[in-house]
Amino acid sequence: MKRYDQVAQALAQRIEQGQYRVGDRLPSVRAVCRELGVSVSTAQEAYRRLEEAGLAEARPRSGYYALPVARPETLPRVTRPAQRPLEVSQWDQVLELVAPSPEEDDRLMLGRGVPDLDAPSLRPLKRELATLHRRVGTYGLNYDSLQGSLALRRQVARLATASDCLLHPDDVLITTGCQEALSLALRTLTEPGDVVAVDSPSFYGTMQILKANRLKALEIPTDPRTGISLEALELALEQWPIKAIQLTPTCNNPLGYTMPEARKRELVALAQRFDVAIIEDDIYGDLAFTASRPRSVKSFDDEGRVLMCSSFSKTLMPGLRVGWMAPGRHRDQVLHMKYVSTGASATLPQLAVAEFVRHGHYERHLREMIRQYRRHRDIMLGWVDRYFPADTGVSYPQGGFLLWLELPGVDCVRLKDRLAEEGLHIAPGSLFSASGKYRHCLRLNYAAAMTPIIEAALECVGAIAATLRETRPDHAPTQA
Amino acid sequence: MKRYDQVAQALAQRIEQGQYRVGDRLPSVRAVCRELGVSVSTAQEAYRRLEEAGLAEARPRSGYYALPVARPETLPRVTRPAQRPLEVSQWDQVLELVAPSPEEDDRLMLGRGVPDLDAPSLRPLKRELATLHRRVGTYGLNYDSLQGSLALRRQVARLATASDCLLHPDDVLITTGCQEALSLALRTLTEPGDVVAVDSPSFYGTMQILKANRLKALEIPTDPRTGISLEALELALEQWPIKAIQLTPTCNNPLGYTMPEARKRELVALAQRFDVAIIEDDIYGDLAFTASRPRSVKSFDDEGRVLMCSSFSKTLMPGLRVGWMAPGRHRDQVLHMKYVSTGASATLPQLAVAEFVRHGHYERHLREMIRQYRRHRDIMLGWVDRYFPADTGVSYPQGGFLLWLELPGVDCVRLKDRLAEEGLHIAPGSLFSASGKYRHCLRLNYAAAMTPIIEAALECVGAIAATLRETRPDHAPTQA
Repeated sequence: MKRYDQVAQALAQRIEQGQYRVGDRLPSVRAVCRELGVSVSTAQEAYRRLEEAGLAEARPRSGYYALPVARPETLPRVTRPAQRPLEVSQWDQVLELVAPSPEEDDRLMLGRGVPDLDAPSLRPLKRELATLHRRVGTYGLNYDSLQGSLALRRQVARLATASDCLLHPDDVLITTGCQEALSLALRTLTEPGDVVAVDSPSFYGTMQILKANRLKALEIPTDPRTGISLEALELALEQWPIKAIQLTPTCNNPLGYTMPEARKRELVALAQRFDVAIIEDDIYGDLAFTASRPRSVKSFDDEGRVLMCSSFSKTLMPGLRVGWMAPGRHRDQVLHMKYVSTGASATLPQLAVAEFVRHGHYERHLREMIRQYRRHRDIMLGWVDRYFPADTGVSYPQGGFLLWLELPGVDCVRLKDRLAEEGLHIAPGSLFSASGKYRHCLRLNYAAAMTPIIEAALECVGAIAATLRETRPDHAPTQA
Repeated sequence: MKRYDQVAQALAQRIEQGQYRVGDRLPSVRAVCRELGVSVSTAQEAYRRLEEAGLAEARPRSGYYALPVARPETLPRVTRPAQRPLEVSQWDQVLELVAPSPEEDDRLMLGRGVPDLDAPSLRPLKRELATLHRRVGTYGLNYDSLQGSLALRRQVARLATASDCLLHPDDVLITTGCQEALSLALRTLTEPGDVVAVDSPSFYGTMQILKANRLKALEIPTDPRTGISLEALELALEQWPIKAIQLTPTCNNPLGYTMPEARKRELVALAQRFDVAIIEDDIYGDLAFTASRPRSVKSFDDEGRVLMCSSFSKTLMPGLRVGWMAPGRHRDQVLHMKYVSTGASATLPQLAVAEFVRHGHYERHLREMIRQYRRHRDIMLGWVDRYFPADTGVSYPQGGFLLWLELPGVDCVRLKDRLAEEGLHIAPGSLFSASGKYRHCLRLNYAAAMTPIIEAALECVGAIAATLRETRPDHAPTQA
C-alpha cells in the first residue's frame, strides 16, 4: 500500500471511530506531517483520498473538516441458516424479478441491482459505443478471441492491482457478465450432487446456478459487519465434502459489509488446509467507500485456488454484458466451458470498455460514483430511520448501492405483492436463501437520484410494512 | 406455399435436373401461364424468384435464360461412423481454431465459419449500432428482459414463417449466439453420461458441448445429399437410450446438404415414436440457394418436441452474439438455464438487429448474400476442380458458405500444420467427429470476395495436399 493510502486509512479510522465528530476541524496538513513523519505532498494526497471517500471536505483557507458518517442504530442480526446442505428453491421469485424488460415495466424498481445509468461520467463510454464501429472496421463485427479482447484484458489486469491482485492479461478471461463467470466457475469445479458452501444471505443468481446444476448449498452463518463466519465454515469443512466456497467478501450483496483483510487472509489459509477452491464474487469491489480499495481474497492466494469473478455491470452498465474472471489454475477447463457456453463474448462492447478504461475515464467515474453512492446511502439511512418501524434492522454498507433491512414480524413476500399494487418493487429477502429464509428482510437500491419520489416511495414501503406486522410479540425474524 | 413459389420450384427442378442447359432460353411467361394454368403476375413472380436464386437471368426484350449450375463430379461418400456412443475428443484442435483474435491473427482463414462482413447490405445495421445509443436512452444500457427484447422476438417470429414455422414472440428466447442456444438445449435435456445422436460429420461446437457436459455422442451415418440416415437412426433409437437427436438439417455445416422435406417430416415422426427430443441447428437455414426457403424440422412439429436453435451470426455478424431459440415445451426449464448461464443477453445489439429486420433490410441483405454465396460456391468448385487431385470428393452446398472436401490418402491435420507455415488456415475434418474421424477431409469458406489471393491460396492447398498423399493405393478415407 502506498504511504499516502496508509495515512488516509489512519485518519479514516479515527473519523469512523468517532474521534472527530461531524464538522470538527481535522488536523492540519502540517500537523499530520509532524505526527506521522510524512512529507507535505503525502499528507495532501491522503486528504485528497479522504475527500474522495466522502469522509472529509476542504474549506477554502481553513483546512479539512469531518463529514457526517451516518450509522444505523440497529444492525441486522448475525444470520443463522440451517447447518446442512440444501437444494435451492425460489426460482419463481427470481424469475419475477428478472423476467420483465425495463422498457415494458413501469414499476419503481427499489430492489434491483442496477447502478445509476444517468451518471455524466458515463458519457465517454456512450461516445465510444457510438463511434467505435467506424474506427475498428470488420474486426469489431467478427468473432473475438475466445479469451476476450487483449486490449480489455490488459486494462482489467491493470485495474486489478488496486486490490493488490497481480494478474497477467493471460490470467484474465472476458465473460458475458459476471453471471457467466460464476456459472463457468461452478460448473468447472463441481458435479451434480456436490456441496458448495456460501455466505448467507447470498446473491440469488449464484443460488440459482446451484439449483440448475443440481448442487447443494450449505449456507454459513454470516456477520453483517465482518462477513462469513470462519469458525462455522471450518466446522462445515470438517463435516461435509465441500467442493467450493462461494462468497462476495467485498461490498457484499446484499449486506454491504467488507470482510476485514485479516479474515480474508484466514479464509485463504482455511481453503488451503482443506484443499478447496474459493469463488470470489468481486462485482461491487471497485465501489468501496473506504479511502483505499480493499484487498481481494484473490490477492492472498498464491496457489491459483481462488476463481475471481467480476464485471463492469455494477460500475458501468449491465446491458453491455461485459464481465471477466481470473480463474487461477482452473484456466484451461474454464476456457473450454466458456467455449461451449457462449463462444467468444461480443466484440464491440469489450473494445468500448477497454478504450474507456485506457483513457482514465473509469477511475474518474468510480470516484464520482463512490462519492454519490456514499451520499445516497446516508440519505437512505435517514429515510429508513424516519419512515420505518423503530425495531427495523438496517445494514451499514461499506460500498456499492444496496441496503438490507430486517423488519421483525413482517412477511416481505407479502409486502412485495402489496407494494406491486402501488407500482413499487422491492427484492424480498427470501430470494437470498436456498430455502427461502430471510422472509422478514428486504433489499433496497439507492443508486439513482434520491428524489422526492424515492422518499415518498420509502415512506410508503415503511407505512405498509408497519401494517403487515404480525402481532406476535417475540418474533425471531432471521430464524423464521 | 404460395402459388408462385410452387411454379418457381417446378422450373428450378427442371433446371437442376438438366432439362434446360446453360444459356438455354427458358419458357416465356405466357408459356408458363398456359402450361401451369397460372396468372401472368404469378409466372412473373416465379421468374423473379428464380433470378434471386441465381438459376435464371433476364435479358432485356428477350426473356429468361438458364444460368450455369456447377455440379461436382465426385461427392463425398456417405459417412460410416462408429455405431456406438463415444466420448468427444478434439478440444485441442477446436481451441486452436477459436482461440486467436482476428486482430492478432494474420493467417488467411479459409476454414472458419465467418460470413462476408464487408457486404454493402450490412451498412444499415452498422448505422443502427452507431446511432441507437442516442435514441433509446438508458433502456439500452440496462439489463434486458431475460427472454430478450420483445421488439426482436416479434421480428424473429415473423421471419420464422418463411420456414413454415408458426411462432408466437413468447415462444422465442434470445440467446448469446447460437452456441448458447445449443448449450441450453443440451443441458436442459440431458444429464452426465446420457447419449445424444448426432449427424456425422457434425458441427464441432456442439460436439464440444457434449464433451463439457460429459455426454456421449452417437454418430449416425449421413448422406452428403440427403442428410442423416433415418434408417440408421431408427436402429440406434431401438438399441440405445438416446435422450436427444442433435442435427443441422438445412444448409448443413459442414456438408452443405438440405434434408428433403419428406425426410424432415419422417424424422419428426420417428422422434415422436421413440419420444425423444430434437435439437435443430438452423443457423445457416436462411442462406438456402433454393427458390423458396426450405421448411424447418420445427415446422413439422406439433408437440413442442423440437428445440430450434439459430442466430444472426451467419446471416449478419457473429461479433454481435445475437442468437435465438424456440424451445417448444421445454421453455420454462430453458429459461431457467438461460438465467443461470448469462442472465439477460446484451440489450443494444438486440435492438439494432430488431430495427434492421423491421425495416426490411434483413430480407434484402439475404437476397444479396444468397446470390453472392451461390456464385462464390460455383467459382470455388471450379478452383477445386482445377487445383486439387482428380479423386477429390467435394460437397455441393445447397446454401451457406462452406465447402467440404474429401482428399483420399491425405492427412488434413498434417496439411493444416503444413499450411500454417504458408500463413493459410483450413479446418481439418477431424474437428467434426467425436473420435477424430474425417482426418482426410477439410472445410473451406467461400464467403468473402473470391480474389486472386484466394485462388492462389486454393492452388497452394491443392498442391501441398498432393505432396502429402499416402502411397497406399486403396485408401478408404472416410473410414480411417
